[in-house]
Amino acid sequence: MMRTRPLKVALLGCGVVGSEVARIMTTHADDLAARIGAPIELAGVAVRRPSKAREGIDPALITTDATALVKRGDIDVVIEVIGGIEPARALIMTAFEHGASVVSANKALLAEDGAALHAAAEQYGRDLYYEAAVAGAIPLVRPLRESLVGDKVNRVLGIVNGTTNFILDKMDTSGAGYSEALDEATALGYAEADPTADVEGFDAAAKAAILAGIAFHTRVRIGEVHREGITEVTAADIASARRMGCTVKLLAICERAADGRSVTARVHPAMIPLSHPLASVREAYNAVFVEADAAGQLMFYGPGAGGSPTASAVLGDLVAVCRNKLNEATGPGESAYTRLPVSPMGEVVTRYHISLDVADKPGVLAQVATVFAEQGVSIDTVRQQGRQDGGGEASLVVVTHRAPDAALSATVEALRKLDTVHGVASIMRVEGE
Amino acid sequence: MMRTRPLKVALLGCGVVGSEVARIMTTHADDLAARIGAPIELAGVAVRRPSKAREGIDPALITTDATALVKRGDIDVVIEVIGGIEPARALIMTAFEHGASVVSANKALLAEDGAALHAAAEQYGRDLYYEAAVAGAIPLVRPLRESLVGDKVNRVLGIVNGTTNFILDKMDTSGAGYSEALDEATALGYAEADPTADVEGFDAAAKAAILAGIAFHTRVRIGEVHREGITEVTAADIASARRMGCTVKLLAICERAADGRSVTARVHPAMIPLSHPLASVREAYNAVFVEADAAGQLMFYGPGAGGSPTASAVLGDLVAVCRNKLNEATGPGESAYTRLPVSPMGEVVTRYHISLDVADKPGVLAQVATVFAEQGVSIDTVRQQGRQDGGGEASLVVVTHRAPDAALSATVEALRKLDTVHGVASIMRVEGE
Repeated sequence: MMRTRPLKVALLGCGVVGSEVARIMTTHADDLAARIGAPIELAGVAVRRPSKAREGIDPALITTDATALVKRGDIDVVIEVIGGIEPARALIMTAFEHGASVVSANKALLAEDGAALHAAAEQYGRDLYYEAAVAGAIPLVRPLRESLVGDKVNRVLGIVNGTTNFILDKMDTSGAGYSEALDEATALGYAEADPTADVEGFDAAAKAAILAGIAFHTRVRIGEVHREGITEVTAADIASARRMGCTVKLLAICERAADGRSVTARVHPAMIPLSHPLASVREAYNAVFVEADAAGQLMFYGPGAGGSPTASAVLGDLVAVCRNKLNEATGPGESAYTRLPVSPMGEVVTRYHISLDVADKPGVLAQVATVFAEQGVSIDTVRQQGRQDGGGEASLVVVTHRAPDAALSATVEALRKLDTVHGVASIMRVEGE
Repeated sequence: MMRTRPLKVALLGCGVVGSEVARIMTTHADDLAARIGAPIELAGVAVRRPSKAREGIDPALITTDATALVKRGDIDVVIEVIGGIEPARALIMTAFEHGASVVSANKALLAEDGAALHAAAEQYGRDLYYEAAVAGAIPLVRPLRESLVGDKVNRVLGIVNGTTNFILDKMDTSGAGYSEALDEATALGYAEADPTADVEGFDAAAKAAILAGIAFHTRVRIGEVHREGITEVTAADIASARRMGCTVKLLAICERAADGRSVTARVHPAMIPLSHPLASVREAYNAVFVEADAAGQLMFYGPGAGGSPTASAVLGDLVAVCRNKLNEATGPGESAYTRLPVSPMGEVVTRYHISLDVADKPGVLAQVATVFAEQGVSIDTVRQQGRQDGGGEASLVVVTHRAPDAALSATVEALRKLDTVHGVASIMRVEGE
């Protein structure tokens, strides 16, 4: 039974994602109406530059006054694709207050202040959906919030930033250095003019915070996510990974502690074995592994960004939120009942791959091994190699067994103090085994 | 705010999946209650053999009278994990009539009579959820029904039967023949004593019908799915695939026709390139590719069967259905508004890999090529090879370009009539390019 009065949708932001959302809403209006059970109407589009030509959008709908739009009182759903903290936060709060549910793609805001947004949604009886905030069109938020809600998720491990995966993939396949690969990513449109949010891991950290919160039914803010970017990854690191049968990926890792009493969330480059399914994720694609008690290991793969994939996720949420409106119900809200604390990076159990420049003389390995033993870190493999330049230096590559990050980090500090260790050429964690 | 009166759950069937569902409901009762917003109570378990010991289940809950259980009137949710058409269908219908929503893992029933079940659910205002019916714990039904509901899905291509993937993987890695690989699968518990439903493709066809219906918002019954099993796949086929840089997989393929006016659904073995992500799906794992207009290519991967993974999917649905009950709402029902017809296999556009035993003399290739041309089928590659036994025979391997299956099939029939063609050693479709 089709309702004839349309549901009214306000669009905040009309950039790459917003314009694609508006386009699909128009071109697929009949399908969307059939799937929702009521037609939807684009009731207003808030933009910063009203003079810009926007194909297919009635100019009468364009406004620069986003606040007035969300305050109109007749808007059923607000789609927020502006990004950033303000004015997005204030607009979403105002939308809830004035009767609208919200679909957002704003990972930064959700990772910074998701709890307050969820609380406001609940207070006013609205929906807050945000599938598009994590990994574009890849369904992750809904599978974690709904499909796996009867299971116990222990680990989420994934490639959630396309720009950095593109750069690392280029370095891996062509042997290029970081700067060269970044230049190529920029030229091809995979990296922004200011790539900081991507290459320093802020984008991935926001997604890790969101995923950890949903997966473990707790709250994790972006500030609690340990974050290292890829700017220090060298061609030598990649070559070294290759020699170990590994590749280097920027991973977002969310884990429940073995005792179940805390969680951790971190983003850093890591070596993973070539046999791991994440190793074959190429270019700007994203993929996320989820490990749960009953379900076992699941993987979700697809394009993690871009106007169309992100619009697909936004529209899926739009249909769900509209259906809820018609049902006079709301979908699942925040589930943070476990209130598990977030442990610091030092408590994460991981493995290190350490390359040392050492004096090429007898006894060095024994000295180095003693330092590891003193910190309680057990060594998996050591590879020793005289240097080509014959300058009395050798390189020593040590891969450890699993140990707390604090112990591994203390080991590196102690190694730096040895006279025979001339330098620590690189340190990288090893994951996915 | 937690409701204190528990939601009552009846479990129909207590085999591998049912007992795991009951176990998790008991051991994770607090988590499930927190996630639902109300406690749940196992109110009855219908079984065939009441004398069997069932650890952790109160014997007072066991009954052989499933009908009386679903008619009690105080049951909120019925979980049906009996399988098969009857009595499962009658029990589900009775459950709807007496106030319960239903979570089912019954792919055969849904593929046979899903429309009637959905109609009854809608008539009585109940939910019918069935994530566990397709690919175990891998979220597929919910992503297609909800995450991609704002997009246009054009193709679903996947490995949805673990038993046959295990057998084909063994044949590929060890060079074993079909019977030998089946014996190993049986010995390891991957194949049932009577493996017909798996190896003849019935199980995969049921899943293809369900996926096609959801993906294209139409109705597809199992009888409309073209079905070929793997019993005719030989070690020679696998070796031939290897020479082409391919492997053989049993694929379920659901496609929207290029003109958008019909759909097709089919299950058959096919060669796919080793570079395709589905080629690396090993053992009894499942993986499904989804191609949509805006989202692009997505892949979902995980364990496709087994008690625990299937229980994970059942419990995810249970939580969702319980939340809907508390909201006095229902989730998305059947969406079949497109009413697209299902075209027969002859209209599917695909490629053939054909191995012929031919007379080893000049002019044979010209004859064969003429037959292809007469049927309008264009040849991609031909490989000709004299046979080791020197008996005047050669083998000719032809790979075609894309053409309607009817034309390919007519070509094969015409080839069989040539005097110089002594036999058609194998025919297999080529997909995933």
